[in-house]
Amino acid sequence: MTRLTVRIDFEGSRRLGPGKIALLEAIGATGSITGAAKALGMSYRRAWVLLEETNALFTTPVSETAQGGRQGGGASLTSFGEEIVTRYRSVETALLRSAQGDVRFLEQHLRAGG
Amino acid sequence: MTRLTVRIDFEGSRRLGPGKIALLEAIGATGSITGAAKALGMSYRRAWVLLEETNALFTTPVSETAQGGRQGGGASLTSFGEEIVTRYRSVETALLRSAQGDVRFLEQHLRAGG
Repeated sequence: MTRLTVRIDFEGSRRLGPGKIALLEAIGATGSITGAAKALGMSYRRAWVLLEETNALFTTPVSETAQGGRQGGGASLTSFGEEIVTRYRSVETALLRSAQGDVRFLEQHLRAGG
Repeated sequence: MTRLTVRIDFEGSRRLGPGKIALLEAIGATGSITGAAKALGMSYRRAWVLLEETNALFTTPVSETAQGGRQGGGASLTSFGEEIVTRYRSVETALLRSAQGDVRFLEQHLRAGG
């Protein structure tokens, strides 16, 4: 299956792309940074840094953490965080729809195997 | 200015994204791999490898080289190569149009500075 990915580059080398969105979704699904890191096969440290980067992008937090801190505490998305995910995925869906013909053209000219 | 980028991942870890497309455009514009590499600030070797990767994706070549070989010879896009660029850029344009509202929402919530 061909996959299309969107990356958004804001001014000042600030970026929103599939990695940050997948992390937000995994936090929403697992309820913790630890769970999200595990689900995505990354270290807790990497997930934490990526989440901090995402929170630093916006004036409104995308996530909130419950008590327990670095080890036991849960994490969840704020409604703003959920909206970011929804909007990113809807951009992707619109892209898939509008690119369908072009993707099919490329697929038809792909070398076999790969 | 916010920029949106599309990456296309085909089966078998084969990828078409902004790097390969920019290279094809630069070859079209400069008429050689050397010129394209210079325009993109990459080594000749890197440009050559990237072009080989792009040619290996498809059953039809995206570029052709004139006599002169590695050093002096010119390079140009085939009509198939030109079509790849056109289709990729039209996918991007459609994305920009459909994502406009969501991008504006994200920009409105961006932290100042950055």
